[in-house]
Amino acid sequence: MESEAKFRLSRVGITGVKKPLVVRRGGMATTLHILLDLYVDLPAAQRGSHLSRNAEAINALIEEAVHNPSDSLEGFAARLVRDLLVRHPYAKVAEVHASADYFLERKNASGGRSLEPFKLLARAEATRNGKKPKVRKMVGVQVVGMTACPCAMETARELIAKERKDKKLAKALESIPTITHNQRNTATLLVEVQEGHPVEADELIELVEGSLSAPTFGLLKRGDEGALVLAAHKNPKFVEDVVRTILTKLLKRYGDLPDDAHITARSESDESIHRHNAVAERATTMGELRIPYPSED
Amino acid sequence: MESEAKFRLSRVGITGVKKPLVVRRGGMATTLHILLDLYVDLPAAQRGSHLSRNAEAINALIEEAVHNPSDSLEGFAARLVRDLLVRHPYAKVAEVHASADYFLERKNASGGRSLEPFKLLARAEATRNGKKPKVRKMVGVQVVGMTACPCAMETARELIAKERKDKKLAKALESIPTITHNQRNTATLLVEVQEGHPVEADELIELVEGSLSAPTFGLLKRGDEGALVLAAHKNPKFVEDVVRTILTKLLKRYGDLPDDAHITARSESDESIHRHNAVAERATTMGELRIPYPSED
Amino acid sequence: MESEAKFRLSRVGITGVKKPLVVRRGGMATTLHILLDLYVDLPAAQRGSHLSRNAEAINALIEEAVHNPSDSLEGFAARLVRDLLVRHPYAKVAEVHASADYFLERKNASGGRSLEPFKLLARAEATRNGKKPKVRKMVGVQVVGMTACPCAMETARELIAKERKDKKLAKALESIPTITHNQRNTATLLVEVQEGHPVEADELIELVEGSLSAPTFGLLKRGDEGALVLAAHKNPKFVEDVVRTILTKLLKRYGDLPDDAHITARSESDESIHRHNAVAERATTMGELRIPYPSED
Amino acid sequence: MESEAKFRLSRVGITGVKKPLVVRRGGMATTLHILLDLYVDLPAAQRGSHLSRNAEAINALIEEAVHNPSDSLEGFAARLVRDLLVRHPYAKVAEVHASADYFLERKNASGGRSLEPFKLLARAEATRNGKKPKVRKMVGVQVVGMTACPCAMETARELIAKERKDKKLAKALESIPTITHNQRNTATLLVEVQEGHPVEADELIELVEGSLSAPTFGLLKRGDEGALVLAAHKNPKFVEDVVRTILTKLLKRYGDLPDDAHITARSESDESIHRHNAVAERATTMGELRIPYPSED
Repeated sequence: MESEAKFRLSRVGITGVKKPLVVRRGGMATTLHILLDLYVDLPAAQRGSHLSRNAEAINALIEEAVHNPSDSLEGFAARLVRDLLVRHPYAKVAEVHASADYFLERKNASGGRSLEPFKLLARAEATRNGKKPKVRKMVGVQVVGMTACPCAMETARELIAKERKDKKLAKALESIPTITHNQRNTATLLVEVQEGHPVEADELIELVEGSLSAPTFGLLKRGDEGALVLAAHKNPKFVEDVVRTILTKLLKRYGDLPDDAHITARSESDESIHRHNAVAERATTMGELRIPYPSED
Repeated sequence: MESEAKFRLSRVGITGVKKPLVVRRGGMATTLHILLDLYVDLPAAQRGSHLSRNAEAINALIEEAVHNPSDSLEGFAARLVRDLLVRHPYAKVAEVHASADYFLERKNASGGRSLEPFKLLARAEATRNGKKPKVRKMVGVQVVGMTACPCAMETARELIAKERKDKKLAKALESIPTITHNQRNTATLLVEVQEGHPVEADELIELVEGSLSAPTFGLLKRGDEGALVLAAHKNPKFVEDVVRTILTKLLKRYGDLPDDAHITARSESDESIHRHNAVAERATTMGELRIPYPSED
Repeated sequence: MESEAKFRLSRVGITGVKKPLVVRRGGMATTLHILLDLYVDLPAAQRGSHLSRNAEAINALIEEAVHNPSDSLEGFAARLVRDLLVRHPYAKVAEVHASADYFLERKNASGGRSLEPFKLLARAEATRNGKKPKVRKMVGVQVVGMTACPCAMETARELIAKERKDKKLAKALESIPTITHNQRNTATLLVEVQEGHPVEADELIELVEGSLSAPTFGLLKRGDEGALVLAAHKNPKFVEDVVRTILTKLLKRYGDLPDDAHITARSESDESIHRHNAVAERATTMGELRIPYPSED
Repeated sequence: MESEAKFRLSRVGITGVKKPLVVRRGGMATTLHILLDLYVDLPAAQRGSHLSRNAEAINALIEEAVHNPSDSLEGFAARLVRDLLVRHPYAKVAEVHASADYFLERKNASGGRSLEPFKLLARAEATRNGKKPKVRKMVGVQVVGMTACPCAMETARELIAKERKDKKLAKALESIPTITHNQRNTATLLVEVQEGHPVEADELIELVEGSLSAPTFGLLKRGDEGALVLAAHKNPKFVEDVVRTILTKLLKRYGDLPDDAHITARSESDESIHRHNAVAERATTMGELRIPYPSED
């Protein structure tokens, strides 16, 4: 390596670390099975990052969590980036990405209960800044639901009316939900959490679930299926609509979040009529979201 | 290893090999980008399989294919298993699994043309058997299309009629396709190819496409979308129906295949109302398929 | 569907179901996050399998497990296939495949402790058979470790000796572990569990870990790394060796398993010198494993 | 949707589109099998992006490419983003990400030739800017090779010397490559291509291959394996080293690239001694890379 130019590296770290993590949710200890990626930067003068210190940091905090659990995955991520800056004195920045399966009870139309899987996400970044690092952290959720396409509903309605040449039927059709393509949709929301502005993952999950055409369920008896299909078709949504509904609900529920709080919302639809997916995304800040349309655009 | 018991191994080989392969399709040379897994068995007396011979076999046949291409992926797989038995004189069995993306032009409702992606599959197995190995080979295809659920269509129809309390509407609804959940479906068909009974992958693709509620397209203008949605809802299918339609069409089109020809048909639906998938599968032979119901069951 | 031939289906079911499952391990309740596939067969006369009954079966047993946990994942899978045959009276066979991340504490060379991730696997199959179904179940484990290649070690040794033209060095080299390629290896063992012959997953994990060139660890300080590398190079193994060592250890530890107990052992190596993987596998029964070489081959 | 706040969306598009694309490489037409993601932004005032226009744009350019092929994947991506801005008059930004398997002949130590798989990557972004959009494009390559750890080599050497208590051996060991862990490494380089500064993907592949401890090959006979292992151990590299070597070679070969040309280099190692991966990354510009150390840091 002797003859090589020295370059700063933006990120050096380890990815794909699996661990069980105890967190305290609603007064109760629960164990998440987390997947972690973590990085620090590396100055040009230093050949290698001390990668084993990352594993030491994780192990120390996983162990600490047994007795003194964080109250959230993002809380754990924030502890971890702080610890990484201590263990890597040459680093100016530390980053952690974490995710975990997460289960909540949901009820279907006929009252049947089922534990449904969601994903918790967390990100934290610590920047060295005098004695006390500046830490930013984000809580995120990923929800699988259903979207029904508003556009194909209109064209299908026109086609049926035309095919049947029955004006009364055409009229009646306008008042009932008509056929369209619908599909599995994965919606994601990441919200920056700041001091004094708590954000609760369970609430974000509800917020995102409520932004799709309909939620999905593991257990649906015959009648539940019909009810779910009907609900979804009464509430047709493009991927664009899903993202905007999420943002609307977020502004309503967490309107007090500071202007510089980062927000990312995303909806990805496994299109039933295509082999490819449809995606909509907005990465922004609370401040930008508050600028009233049409000024924003 | 000295003190260890000696055991025969069922399969030793290499997986995940990527190569470009020239095949002759309809008089024209075309290049597939194939993914290969290949194995031979290993007798108890021998410590290691000569794995590099597998790579040699592939390279030799890939090179040969430039000048003297196989007319199919399964033809190449059959050449390869034969070659593997020659290169591994200690082996009694050689196996190859291959797959490749494959593109065919399709037209949507308004005549728009688009190259749509499918998957070609191939399997071959050679069993040592005197001087001439016994070789079996299968051609397979994988098609992504759309299924609309017949069951939810009925319950949704009942719910709408009940909600509207309009008997005429209820009556009218019975005659038009009603809302239901629909979703992306991946259907797979593998057919054993025997001497004198050619099976054409392009035909299998058409056969499987025609067994779904509707095909999918990359390019759908507004009107095409409506037409596709309508077609799918006029042809609602469970995963079970998809498999049975495939088998019905196969019997009709390739009824002359020998009794011992292996057949596998599968349909997997990325359920829009669930986070999990629904799957139906039949692994069988042509002979069994020909036994008329109710005797078969 | 009216005009379609009726065919029996081998498997109809749901895949990719995620649930939290309480099991009792060593007197303690622990929660696994399981991934489930489950199927029943379907007679030709019946159009659709009642898929929602699968979800009901899962939910009922997941709930029951809170108060009355199974003592293993395969125990849960066996309960589930039994329940599936009750809920699907038309089915002759029910199948369940399950997997879950699983964590055990391990120590590195210098005594550092770390929770390491493994995978638990389970399979169960129930066949209708008069009043009491016949149930077979398998426990499985997946372990990620390290293999160092014995063959390249020899050739590298020869090359170094030749390059240095130093006979003494060549001689000395023969007595120390020499360079070779080494890589991540994923080894899997599935063992059929029968009445009166308990098999413990934690023991299988140890058994498989001990069959690789060396285990892997999340946390390795500088000295530990050297020790691990040295251990692996003193114990070079082909994928073939890994499978045979597993089988040898299995015969020693679980020699009393009945003759018809199914066994599958597999080793897959993410070859560092290739882009493809190397794989060895043996699918067999305890009876066959007990036939002494050379008779077996 | 009537009551919902209107928000601009950063990205709306389609992902996972598969197509065959003819490109001209070195005077010859070759067909890549590409995977495409493409997006435009969406103003707050507009409910939906016209997603079918994306598919039309792709199809039009895929067809055009048959007669008038781009000379690179990034050239195609640049055409596509320009076309997207024309087809989406409301959009200010269009983005395309593309990748494709790609094969080049390589020779092993004994002269054996083999077609080895690489990945081509491309990114393009068009920003509306008066009449002529501003287009930026990047060419990228992904290479799978091998890294041997320099640190474990030292500690293993110390351990062996200590164990053998032989000073002469210890001395001799210092002069020969010693055992260490080595593994599969995936290295990625993305370079912005600007007018008058052509960058050739084949050269980038060579450059990245030359930055690893050693390349990998599909076909290695016994002697080749030893030679490759020896070469890798004579050239041990951390993931950090791989990235810095890439950057060093890039500066040497493409030193004339403009200051604002974006560069991303990454090395990810499937650690053989861990279950997790090690990663190093630098995202930067040519201008920053040219600032001589120690000033840069």
